[in-house]
Amino acid sequence: MSAKFDIFNFISLLKSVLKEDGKIPLHEPLFAGKEWKYVKDCLDTGWVSSAGKYVNEFDFKLEQYTGIKHSIAVVNGTAALHICLKLAGVRQGDEVLVPALTFVATANAVVYCGAIPHFIDIEVKSLGVDPVKLYDYLKEIAVIKNDICFNKQTMRPIKAVIAMHTFGHPVDLEPLLEVCKKYKLELIEDAAEALGSYYKNRHVGSYGRLSAVSFNGNKIITTGGGGAILTNDTELAKMARHLITTAKVPHPWAFIHDQVGYNYRMPNINAALGCAQIEQIDRFIANKRALAEKYCKTFSNVHGIRFFTEPEYARSNYWLNTLIIDEEYKEMRDLLLSETNKQGISTRPSWELMNKLEMYKDCPRMDLSIAENLGQRIINIPSSAYLGE
Amino acid sequence: MSAKFDIFNFISLLKSVLKEDGKIPLHEPLFAGKEWKYVKDCLDTGWVSSAGKYVNEFDFKLEQYTGIKHSIAVVNGTAALHICLKLAGVRQGDEVLVPALTFVATANAVVYCGAIPHFIDIEVKSLGVDPVKLYDYLKEIAVIKNDICFNKQTMRPIKAVIAMHTFGHPVDLEPLLEVCKKYKLELIEDAAEALGSYYKNRHVGSYGRLSAVSFNGNKIITTGGGGAILTNDTELAKMARHLITTAKVPHPWAFIHDQVGYNYRMPNINAALGCAQIEQIDRFIANKRALAEKYCKTFSNVHGIRFFTEPEYARSNYWLNTLIIDEEYKEMRDLLLSETNKQGISTRPSWELMNKLEMYKDCPRMDLSIAENLGQRIINIPSSAYLGE
Repeated sequence: MSAKFDIFNFISLLKSVLKEDGKIPLHEPLFAGKEWKYVKDCLDTGWVSSAGKYVNEFDFKLEQYTGIKHSIAVVNGTAALHICLKLAGVRQGDEVLVPALTFVATANAVVYCGAIPHFIDIEVKSLGVDPVKLYDYLKEIAVIKNDICFNKQTMRPIKAVIAMHTFGHPVDLEPLLEVCKKYKLELIEDAAEALGSYYKNRHVGSYGRLSAVSFNGNKIITTGGGGAILTNDTELAKMARHLITTAKVPHPWAFIHDQVGYNYRMPNINAALGCAQIEQIDRFIANKRALAEKYCKTFSNVHGIRFFTEPEYARSNYWLNTLIIDEEYKEMRDLLLSETNKQGISTRPSWELMNKLEMYKDCPRMDLSIAENLGQRIINIPSSAYLGE
Repeated sequence: MSAKFDIFNFISLLKSVLKEDGKIPLHEPLFAGKEWKYVKDCLDTGWVSSAGKYVNEFDFKLEQYTGIKHSIAVVNGTAALHICLKLAGVRQGDEVLVPALTFVATANAVVYCGAIPHFIDIEVKSLGVDPVKLYDYLKEIAVIKNDICFNKQTMRPIKAVIAMHTFGHPVDLEPLLEVCKKYKLELIEDAAEALGSYYKNRHVGSYGRLSAVSFNGNKIITTGGGGAILTNDTELAKMARHLITTAKVPHPWAFIHDQVGYNYRMPNINAALGCAQIEQIDRFIANKRALAEKYCKTFSNVHGIRFFTEPEYARSNYWLNTLIIDEEYKEMRDLLLSETNKQGISTRPSWELMNKLEMYKDCPRMDLSIAENLGQRIINIPSSAYLGE
C-alpha cells in the first residue's frame, strides 16, 4: 500500500518529520555545551592564535574519540587533504584516483600537489568508490614497474586512491584496501563528512595511512572553519606537524625552514570551539541517527523515492540525510528542489560530477555510469542534530 | 657622552622601558573592546562559519580604515598573498622578485603558484626592497618582449615584485612603482605586518594593484588566524571572492565550480574578533608609537647599537621594534638574544635570508650584500601595544 509520490505529499512528508515551521537549514550547528566557557577562556588569556592549549587538547580529544593515534588540527578539511596527499608522496605529474561524485575540494587538493585527478565510479550501496569495478579497471589500464603503478595510456604514475565517505557513509574499505595493496596505491580517506562513522566497528580514517576530516560550519561538529589530519603513523604525524607550521625548524629564536611548508595550523580560538563540540558528539550522533530513522520510516511506504540507509558493514553518522528518486521519477528532482527551497526547507542535489566541471573535463576517467545515474537522483534533506531530539 | 654598550646595560635599558617583571612576549594581543560581545553573538546565533555577517562587517571596517575599496578576508596572510599572485597572473615557470629578507611565507606563496622566487636586495632606510638597486639590476638581466619582462639568463618571464613592508615600515613605493612600470612588472604589497602604516599619507596596500595583510596572533590586530586581500580594482575583488570560495558559481542549490579554487574564506567567529580589534586600532598604534619613542630615546645615547626609526616618507605602525647593532659589535647578537630570552624578555633576530634556506638556495638572486649585512645585526624587542600605555 504505497502512498502516491508527488510534490505536495513530498513536502508534507518532510514537514511531518521536521515538525518546525519557518526556515529549516540543511545542517546547522548546535552549541549546547562549554562553547562559551572555552572561547571566553581564550579571550581572557589572550591565546587566540596557533600556539595555545586548546589546539593540543582538541587533537587529544579527537585521538581519544576516533581511536586513531595522531590528530593534527588544521585550518580546514581541504588543507588536511592537501597535506595527506603531500605526505603520501603525490608529486607533479602523478595521477590520483578520485571518485567522480564528491565535493570539489577532493579533486582540488590533488591539483594543489601538481597532480592529475583520475575519476572513478561509485557503487550503489555506499555512494562511494566501488572496489570491484576499480579492480577490473586497473587490470585493464594499469601496469606495475619497480613497485610503482603506471597508467599504461598516459604513462604517468598512479600514486593513490582517495576514498570519500559520501554524506558520512563509509566506503567498503576492506576490499578497497586489497585493491590498493595489489596495485601499490596509497589509500587516503577523505573523511570530511564522516567523523563518528564506523566501518566494521573501527572508526573510519584508520584504514588509509592518512585521512582528513572537516569541522566546517555544516559538519557534524564545527570549529567555525577547521579540519584535521588523522594517522596511526608517528613519523607521518611528525612530518604533518612540521609541514603545517611553515616547516620551521625548532629553535629558541632562529627562523630556519627546511622545506616549502604551509600556514595551516588551526587557531586556538577555533580549537576551543572544537573542544566543546566534540564533548557533545555522542549526543549529536544519537540525534542524527534518530532523525534518519524517522525519515526512513516516513518514506518507507512511498512509491518512487527511497531513503538511503547505511551499508550493512557500517554504522554511519548520517551527516546528510539522503533520498534517492526512482529512475522513472528522476525528472522531478529540480521541481522538488525548487519547491522545498521556496518553502524554506533547505534541500540540495549531490555535487555536479567532477568530470563535468570545466577544469576537470579532460582528466582521465573510467566508465562512470553509476555516478552519472545516481548524480541525477539524489536529494539531501535537512539533517541538523537538533531536529532529531 | 655615550653609555657603554654591553650585555648588562643592554638588558637594564630594555627593562627601564618595559617596566614589567616576569615573562615579556615579543608581541601579544590586547582584548579590551567588544571581542566577547561579538564572539558571543556568533555562538548565540549559531553563525560561526564562513557565511555570516561579521565577515562582511570586518571587510567593510578594513575598507573604511585603509581607504582601499575592497577587502576580502581570508584564513591567513599566506592565503591572501597566494591569491594576490594568482590574480596577478603568476603561473608555472614564471619568476617573481622577492626580498631576501622576509618571512618565509612570501617566497612560499610564489612556489604555491608553481613559480620561482628570484631574490633581491633591501635598503638600509626601509629594510625593504631597494628600488634603485633593483632598477640597475633589471637593466642588466632583463629584457622586454611583447610587453613581457624576461630574465635573459633563465629566459623565464618575470611577472611581479613583492614589496614586503618589514616590521611595518613601508618600502619606498613611488620609485618602486616607476621601476615596475618600466619593466612591466606587477607590484604586489606584502603588507602582512603593516596594517596602520602609511606611505606619504596614503595607507600601504594601495600602491600595488593587489596586497595582502595578516591578522595572526602576533600582528597589530588579530583574528586568531586570518588575513585579507586588499585592492582598489572591483573586477579583481570579484575574482578574489570567487577564488577563495572554491570558485563556486552562484546558484540556489547546484554545486558547479568553474575553475580550481581554494577554501580560504575567513570563518565568521574569527571575523567577529577582527571587528572588535579593528575598532581599537588607533589606540593600539598610538601606544605602539609611544613605545617606539621610549625605546628610541633610551637607546639614543648608547654607543654600538641604534633604534630603527620609520623612513622620512612614512608613518609606520612600528609593528616590531627593531635595534640594529653596529658592525663592530655584531658578534654580540647571539649573546644578546640568548641572555634576554633566558631572562624572560622575548627578542629575536630577523629571519634567515631566503637564499640561505635549503629549498631556495639555488634560486636566482642579485647581489644581496645589504640584506646579508643587516641580517646579522637586527634584533627585535618586545612590542605589544599595552607596553606603550
